[in-house]
Amino acid sequence: MLSKATVKYVNALQVKKYRNQHQAFVVEGAKSVLELLNSDFELQHLFITDEFLQEHGNRLGKGTRYELVTEQELTKAGTFSSNNAGLAVARMRQLPALQFKPGDFTIALDDVRDPGNLGTIIRIADWYGIQTIVCSESCADFYNPKTISATMGSFTRVKAYYLNLGEWLRELPGSIPIYGASLEGENLHRIQLQPQGVVVMGNEANGIRPEVASEVNQLIKIPAFGKAESLNVATATAIIIDNFMRHAGA
Amino acid sequence: MLSKATVKYVNALQVKKYRNQHQAFVVEGAKSVLELLNSDFELQHLFITDEFLQEHGNRLGKGTRYELVTEQELTKAGTFSSNNAGLAVARMRQLPALQFKPGDFTIALDDVRDPGNLGTIIRIADWYGIQTIVCSESCADFYNPKTISATMGSFTRVKAYYLNLGEWLRELPGSIPIYGASLEGENLHRIQLQPQGVVVMGNEANGIRPEVASEVNQLIKIPAFGKAESLNVATATAIIIDNFMRHAGA
Repeated sequence: MLSKATVKYVNALQVKKYRNQHQAFVVEGAKSVLELLNSDFELQHLFITDEFLQEHGNRLGKGTRYELVTEQELTKAGTFSSNNAGLAVARMRQLPALQFKPGDFTIALDDVRDPGNLGTIIRIADWYGIQTIVCSESCADFYNPKTISATMGSFTRVKAYYLNLGEWLRELPGSIPIYGASLEGENLHRIQLQPQGVVVMGNEANGIRPEVASEVNQLIKIPAFGKAESLNVATATAIIIDNFMRHAGA
Repeated sequence: MLSKATVKYVNALQVKKYRNQHQAFVVEGAKSVLELLNSDFELQHLFITDEFLQEHGNRLGKGTRYELVTEQELTKAGTFSSNNAGLAVARMRQLPALQFKPGDFTIALDDVRDPGNLGTIIRIADWYGIQTIVCSESCADFYNPKTISATMGSFTRVKAYYLNLGEWLRELPGSIPIYGASLEGENLHRIQLQPQGVVVMGNEANGIRPEVASEVNQLIKIPAFGKAESLNVATATAIIIDNFMRHAGA
């Protein structure tokens, strides 16, 4: 059974301030918990249902400590409207210093505020083999439970660096191309793109901020054939990255 | 001020049974309400804040009746966690009989259950100029407030037909190609695709059901370069449709 103190601790980790204070975060649902157990994140707590244990017990590493709980307890402690599988608390990890060399390819997010969008973008990065993304400091938090949940486990493979984006771009070697998504850009069906450099995606409502846009070498757009005014930023990221990767040869 | 009866009515429209009974649905937020006002949907009620009126009053048609309400009232009546703009109730529309001819292009959704995914796919369809989509009867409801909200106004331009998908596909002329998204499909970066025929997207967890898959002529997949096991169905739809449209010439 989950103690009151534990429920309080897990609830507190929904708030960034307490996540940072404890250097810990919450992972919910079967898929995400299994990916966590299969990663190099350090586990602090693992709460699972009997159902999860029956189904996935063989995927718990030797000596993994867990506590059996009910679906009701999981739902009370976590953010899901229902969770009949598991919830884990893991330690945040220290990232090695960010290295970005000519020939590397990454996504940079400028002020992407919605954790669901961030998580979906992390999943897209993972699909296309991009292991590092870069975020302006105003972006949603990587360790927000909604971000973690939307990554569907990709948070274990993709690293996000938070930094002053305009400054970081300004200091990149001039040979590294910087692309920016914009409704005023060049039609990306009409240009040959190589998966090298940085693709900047802007805020959900306002696009890329001027201090970041000024560092972009080439604006690109997804051609519109209909009347929608815009696409969701995660959707747009997926389409753009796919266009970069189509000549990369998977 | 919103009467108790009105709040009760608007709340009831969150449930499909009552939407069907009243043949009415709810539209929330500035962007969606403005798109609704600019469409041929019949308006039943319009509740707006003074703020919305100041900013967008000139976009209300002549003779449009509205009621001024507070942000608190809107939030109580609707599904948004906050709404400082407006909420409308509109009548569902009767769709003309579905016509699908050789040369047409559409998206068919098989058992896509999440209204957010459905709404995002409707927005993607609108972006690429696809005005009609086809849904299995088990898909999320077009008029669900979460669907409407995720379309960002595209619900006014895209029609969704609910039908027995396997049967409908079976009865299409044999000259119409039927594509299906599948992790076992052909790499869509390697084939030339024309935007003609039907692209079937399957359920979030289980893909396309056997009785629908048996009608598919060609399975296609988005090539993976990394380790994510799958993409969100709306993300995948966007990438696939973009690949079909890249030779269409916008």
